[in-house]
Amino acid sequence: MKKRLGMTVMALAAIATLGAGVLNAKDRELIDPIKPAKVTDAALVELGKKLYFDPRLSKSGFISCNSCHNLSMGGTDNIKTSIGHNWTKGPINAPTVLNSSLNVAQFWDGRAADLKEQAGGPIANPGEMASSHTLSVHILQSIPGYVADFKKVFGSDKVDIDKVTKAIAAFEETLVTPNSRFDKWLKGDKKAITEQELAGYNLFKSTGCIACHNGPAVGGNTFQKMGIVEPYKSTTGGDGRSAVTGKDADRFNYKVPTLRNVELTYPYFHDGEAATLKEAVDVMGRLQLGRKFTEDENAKIVAFLHTLTGDQPNFKLPILPASSDITPRPSPFDK
Amino acid sequence: MKKRLGMTVMALAAIATLGAGVLNAKDRELIDPIKPAKVTDAALVELGKKLYFDPRLSKSGFISCNSCHNLSMGGTDNIKTSIGHNWTKGPINAPTVLNSSLNVAQFWDGRAADLKEQAGGPIANPGEMASSHTLSVHILQSIPGYVADFKKVFGSDKVDIDKVTKAIAAFEETLVTPNSRFDKWLKGDKKAITEQELAGYNLFKSTGCIACHNGPAVGGNTFQKMGIVEPYKSTTGGDGRSAVTGKDADRFNYKVPTLRNVELTYPYFHDGEAATLKEAVDVMGRLQLGRKFTEDENAKIVAFLHTLTGDQPNFKLPILPASSDITPRPSPFDK
Repeated sequence: MKKRLGMTVMALAAIATLGAGVLNAKDRELIDPIKPAKVTDAALVELGKKLYFDPRLSKSGFISCNSCHNLSMGGTDNIKTSIGHNWTKGPINAPTVLNSSLNVAQFWDGRAADLKEQAGGPIANPGEMASSHTLSVHILQSIPGYVADFKKVFGSDKVDIDKVTKAIAAFEETLVTPNSRFDKWLKGDKKAITEQELAGYNLFKSTGCIACHNGPAVGGNTFQKMGIVEPYKSTTGGDGRSAVTGKDADRFNYKVPTLRNVELTYPYFHDGEAATLKEAVDVMGRLQLGRKFTEDENAKIVAFLHTLTGDQPNFKLPILPASSDITPRPSPFDK
Repeated sequence: MKKRLGMTVMALAAIATLGAGVLNAKDRELIDPIKPAKVTDAALVELGKKLYFDPRLSKSGFISCNSCHNLSMGGTDNIKTSIGHNWTKGPINAPTVLNSSLNVAQFWDGRAADLKEQAGGPIANPGEMASSHTLSVHILQSIPGYVADFKKVFGSDKVDIDKVTKAIAAFEETLVTPNSRFDKWLKGDKKAITEQELAGYNLFKSTGCIACHNGPAVGGNTFQKMGIVEPYKSTTGGDGRSAVTGKDADRFNYKVPTLRNVELTYPYFHDGEAATLKEAVDVMGRLQLGRKFTEDENAKIVAFLHTLTGDQPNFKLPILPASSDITPRPSPFDK
């Protein structure tokens, strides 16, 4: 309890400081526009794109990265918690892959330092893609089209998991969403957002939302306790950051999710329990800020959040290289 | 047994006739080039493309048309039998959607007259997408982006299953694969295929494969018995065409699959039991033609089959319109 109080005071102090900062430095916003991706190795990105869409990285041959981080749907699956191998119910809401390169770390608890480390996780997770690094590399090595790609990109036709995850991460780094209406406003186009949306942004700042949701991704850059003022009651989603740090103080701390494209990434929170933005804003206000937003305030903040949708992925559906006669076949119904 | 013998004699007679036809009319091939799609209503096709990729047509929110007829993988899932809602094991191999507009009817047993009728099947099949026409229409009607699309395409913002399946079918009609190397050869480019591949084509004709696999889709235009000369032993795939016609003579009759893009549509047969083209050609030779192909003959026919791969789908990944606050949410884990 002492620790919880400690967190609360610290967090409120941080909010107060930030709030003052905003008031004293009107010219500087705490949210920065998303920068377009800089592609330095197009072939690496193309390879990563194929791998991202390839369900042969799963035991079943049915689940790809895109299954749960669907680029047609804001980089998420829009399900409370994801469906894994053998219809396993996932323990936590699938976070969006869009702008994930801007995150301080990957997964809700930050257990992966970067996208490359993250990419190896689901492939080998028995409740997700349920394959193994050995098997997936073996499969890719047996596919002539991939071997040619690896040779072209890495100068060697030897596939290994390090190259696989490097390619996937390189593709994911291109999945940024610039040119949202809010970013246009930040860059000086004052007509890019409506008065209602601007009022929502001002509330977002003045009430303290921005204390955690700031930076280019409007979040993603810190871990914060879910339930600062009031405890958050949830039956799913685990203990959060403490599973990584081993520190009791990190219990129920989660990476602050990005609010970029948030109108597309429902349902919300690490357990997916908030179905709508209205509900999410209401819960955040009460639990994190000790504030009950009025209907009007809630509507304004939600309106602001809708301005954060940027350019969605814009590329051709990748065509995957065919398996060869020696490619190990999927085994979807093996227990 | 009498009926089986009857089928055999008839089929062999048909092959003999066709074989003679080929020999007597050298200028005319029994396979025609695939024609490019003619799009008359681009907005209808675009709407159908979105619906094809939209997992909200399934109860789980996880399975779309593209899950089992994956356009990155030859329009199939490359699994023996598909995975449906709650990881249900499908009863039959998912046929490719590529060039399916050329089929005499849809599904292996031809129970749907056309693509529009087919499209409504999996949505409401408890072992596939497990939704209902009512629910899926209700969901689409609640999504402002779709309502605008329906209004634009149909002149009315009222969504119904007839419009939904019409749009999906219109998109699927564009999924033809012209410009294969074999089609180039058919059109006069004699260097488009190798001598080995041409030898395979000549074997394909002279041994009778072409009796069933002919027309622009190299199949898809008749129902034939699986196991003419020798019975086919299978534990999956049902009784075939007789389930539709009620005729005992149609037992184990299935729609002849297209051989277009066949190098991409493994595994083969209605039960997916042939893992490779080599195996499929061997089984077909023995069971349908009473002929044991030599290694060399088999390799030549397989080489020919590899020339049938045409232009794969070439479009941008569709971005789906966001659900609204009133859109019914998926229920993946409801029993």
